[in-house]
Amino acid sequence: MLAEILTIGDELLTGHTVDSNSSYIAQKLTERGYWVRRKTTVGDDVEEIKRAVGEIISRKPSVLVISGGLGPTHDDVTMLAVAEALGRRLILRDDCLRRIEKFYRELHKKGLIDDPELNEARRKMAHLPEGAEPLENTVGAAPGAYIEHEDVKIFVLPGMPGEMKAMLEREVLPRLGARKFVQRKLLAEITDESKLAPVLTEALERFSIRIHSSPKGFGRFIGIIIFAEDEESIEKAKSFMEEKGILFEEGW
Amino acid sequence: MLAEILTIGDELLTGHTVDSNSSYIAQKLTERGYWVRRKTTVGDDVEEIKRAVGEIISRKPSVLVISGGLGPTHDDVTMLAVAEALGRRLILRDDCLRRIEKFYRELHKKGLIDDPELNEARRKMAHLPEGAEPLENTVGAAPGAYIEHEDVKIFVLPGMPGEMKAMLEREVLPRLGARKFVQRKLLAEITDESKLAPVLTEALERFSIRIHSSPKGFGRFIGIIIFAEDEESIEKAKSFMEEKGILFEEGW
Repeated sequence: MLAEILTIGDELLTGHTVDSNSSYIAQKLTERGYWVRRKTTVGDDVEEIKRAVGEIISRKPSVLVISGGLGPTHDDVTMLAVAEALGRRLILRDDCLRRIEKFYRELHKKGLIDDPELNEARRKMAHLPEGAEPLENTVGAAPGAYIEHEDVKIFVLPGMPGEMKAMLEREVLPRLGARKFVQRKLLAEITDESKLAPVLTEALERFSIRIHSSPKGFGRFIGIIIFAEDEESIEKAKSFMEEKGILFEEGW
Repeated sequence: MLAEILTIGDELLTGHTVDSNSSYIAQKLTERGYWVRRKTTVGDDVEEIKRAVGEIISRKPSVLVISGGLGPTHDDVTMLAVAEALGRRLILRDDCLRRIEKFYRELHKKGLIDDPELNEARRKMAHLPEGAEPLENTVGAAPGAYIEHEDVKIFVLPGMPGEMKAMLEREVLPRLGARKFVQRKLLAEITDESKLAPVLTEALERFSIRIHSSPKGFGRFIGIIIFAEDEESIEKAKSFMEEKGILFEEGW
């Protein structure tokens, strides 16, 4: 099952912010048995987001996770762009509006903001694409959205890491089922990665696995990660490589 | 002038590695006056890389920086994929081969590797797309490549951060000219980002600037970055927003 990730934010394209969100999402999707095939990052621009969403949908992944651009400012345009990309209207959701109102009232009670009332910018966050299911934001104001569209499960999450992670855990992962990947990290005792290459290539041809090797300089060890659908495939591939003269240690 | 960045590596798609390379490249390109319009990440897969490169070329950015997948292992397939995407042959470069040979001899002399000789995996790194200019790797074995293709300046760099940064500094940036962007970080003293929104929107309409605002929770300040081609535009936009009641402090 293939997945794609789309992160949105000018700060990611100017290099001001390192995109750790997409790594986090990738890791969680991988653990759930999805191959993340591509990550894309675009700025806070309706046309750019629309184009990227359209392209991803046309590649028909099972899952698309979008993160960023749900807040109240001028550059938070993700919901609008997603709605347009999917040919859906953007709808003011009364349930979301009530939650946002409550959120700001509570911030006001705590003395964190001066004005508890809903204004245009705050109301904006209560708009979701037609047919979307709201995803609860337990940390911030803006709700996320879950949309099933042409067999793609689309999740739209906030960009603030704390909000994104909470929503991913609570609202996204439970909708993705329980299937798991297995992965094992091994240290190959060998002086040069290039000597490992033919053995890895042969193992890839023989077994249902994927292997990633990490160059760790030119020391005595090379780190590899074997991915498979079960432990047995990993064990077989490992034994095969050991027979070919590769010495492994577990973990790194 | 638009730029795109393509990072390559399975480890970026499984979440094992946070893609700090693309942020670094983005920052350097932004400083040189390029708008980075999109970042893409794909795995170590010839077809995926070909597809991504083809799509990026069709969007006609001025610059495309590619990073990752130049090493000796089975999953280092970037040069092959780039050559195929551009409809060029992959050529064994004698000059690159000599440099790689020298590199391994020196590692051997230092006692870091057992075998100084060229083998298939090491020879692989001396292959560049036809018509490419090799980019010197002062840190590792694999050369990069510079290719002008349909008015797109394409740079292919290693994925190891130390190698990538050295090559970017020495080989890429000098080829990009001296034009600069100006950016200023300001702290807006305001209790809620949503109140700033209409003022930012008006400033964006009036001046040749781009603004990114960073939600910093719901405290007293909101960080914004103003980008422009000169200091004067930033100063004008700032004064305009101050007249509208926004209080600024410099920096954050």
